[in-house]
Amino acid sequence: MEKYIFSLEMKVRDYECDLQGIVNNANYQHYIEHTRHEFLRSEGISFAALHEQGTDAVVARLQMAFKTPLRSGDSFVSRLALRKEGIKYVFVQDIFRLPDNKPVIRSTVETVCLVNGRLAESVELNERFGKYF
Amino acid sequence: MEKYIFSLEMKVRDYECDLQGIVNNANYQHYIEHTRHEFLRSEGISFAALHEQGTDAVVARLQMAFKTPLRSGDSFVSRLALRKEGIKYVFVQDIFRLPDNKPVIRSTVETVCLVNGRLAESVELNERFGKYF
Amino acid sequence: MEKYIFSLEMKVRDYECDLQGIVNNANYQHYIEHTRHEFLRSEGISFAALHEQGTDAVVARLQMAFKTPLRSGDSFVSRLALRKEGIKYVFVQDIFRLPDNKPVIRSTVETVCLVNGRLAESVELNERFGKYF
Amino acid sequence: MEKYIFSLEMKVRDYECDLQGIVNNANYQHYIEHTRHEFLRSEGISFAALHEQGTDAVVARLQMAFKTPLRSGDSFVSRLALRKEGIKYVFVQDIFRLPDNKPVIRSTVETVCLVNGRLAESVELNERFGKYF
Repeated sequence: MEKYIFSLEMKVRDYECDLQGIVNNANYQHYIEHTRHEFLRSEGISFAALHEQGTDAVVARLQMAFKTPLRSGDSFVSRLALRKEGIKYVFVQDIFRLPDNKPVIRSTVETVCLVNGRLAESVELNERFGKYF
Repeated sequence: MEKYIFSLEMKVRDYECDLQGIVNNANYQHYIEHTRHEFLRSEGISFAALHEQGTDAVVARLQMAFKTPLRSGDSFVSRLALRKEGIKYVFVQDIFRLPDNKPVIRSTVETVCLVNGRLAESVELNERFGKYF
Repeated sequence: MEKYIFSLEMKVRDYECDLQGIVNNANYQHYIEHTRHEFLRSEGISFAALHEQGTDAVVARLQMAFKTPLRSGDSFVSRLALRKEGIKYVFVQDIFRLPDNKPVIRSTVETVCLVNGRLAESVELNERFGKYF
Repeated sequence: MEKYIFSLEMKVRDYECDLQGIVNNANYQHYIEHTRHEFLRSEGISFAALHEQGTDAVVARLQMAFKTPLRSGDSFVSRLALRKEGIKYVFVQDIFRLPDNKPVIRSTVETVCLVNGRLAESVELNERFGKYF
């Protein structure tokens, strides 16, 4: 059982659905990216400000398992857990349909920091996130 | 002064920003489409269900004026007014940044109904929206 | 009859279609933006480089008329004409389905330049585009 | 070394870049989806037509490794290999920057068929793709 530390509720927007009538897969990547950035913001960190300061958090690897597709009108909650593995921040990000909590996707997102374009530890992120490890 | 009949608050998602660091223009079209569909839903009408029943509401003309760009972290409210002109439903859709209410875009969206692929009045929409004209 | 000065052929990508089975309207804004940027590039101007140099070309007003929707598998040509009106560059941008040349959208895009954030003439753009006026 | 059976050249569109100035990750999912659908089309199969006939090819699992980000102005080639594992079609989909062939992403996409909403083999797809196994 994942120990989620952040959750964000959202609702499907019709333009996110494709000709199969379900949310196009790439939008789940949008949903989980937005969730990570809102998590950062809840910790006082702005992704845009980080970028302007020369630190870019980038995704190195992504795994997604698609369980149940979301459809027009569906609401969902996007949940996030975090662990550190060496230099990587590993986010476990799962989405559940509301109100029945049916799993929609399960994903693992490995991110690293580029400081001025070079792979490096971000002192700021380590300090903020230390409490979760 | 427009007499808005529906409002929806949203927040910029970072993936909606482009390399200029501001929300890419096409996303405003997404925002106002989502607002129209949520307005429909608030009236008990599902855009997806309409489509399955053979009625497609489609945009015939669109005008947008871009006032102030939204940026990462911005919240905004999307407001909607509605009038009927002949067979057309004309939506006035304006977006304001929060909390300062600075105008972001002003737009006019002319929509028509295709019933089984042919331009036609939708009895259902006319009944639901009649109170607004 | 517009005197087009640039054309770009493209093909619908299925993820651009929505639950109505047609290209979602916001994607036409993507298509015409991409056409403008490729036009710039054909003139030796990079939108991204302009931004890095402190000049941002931004859309001030947009008008679109939607004629015939594109569908999965459709190819199309996006054509561009250009005129100057005061400080504005006005692009007339029309899309035609291929191979039957049926009009898909007709649009007018009014753009202005922000130099270091302030409305201004771009000497570079004026020099490059002068031959078209 | 993968034995690629299909390749598609594309070019970055500026709206696909985000505030970091690089292609937003979700767009790679768009690129590889479009590549799969063009591969299907090259085999005489339309994703949209399949859907209308009650057969939906859906992604069950996805793995992506991000190597080098694409930027404004970059061209790239998206290559595809295919194998069958039980009921699954497994696509290996790699993207290389042009002209230097630097790896951009490496991905594996496991897809299954839903026939009238139920997991099933698609006789049509098996016949078309048999030559590749």
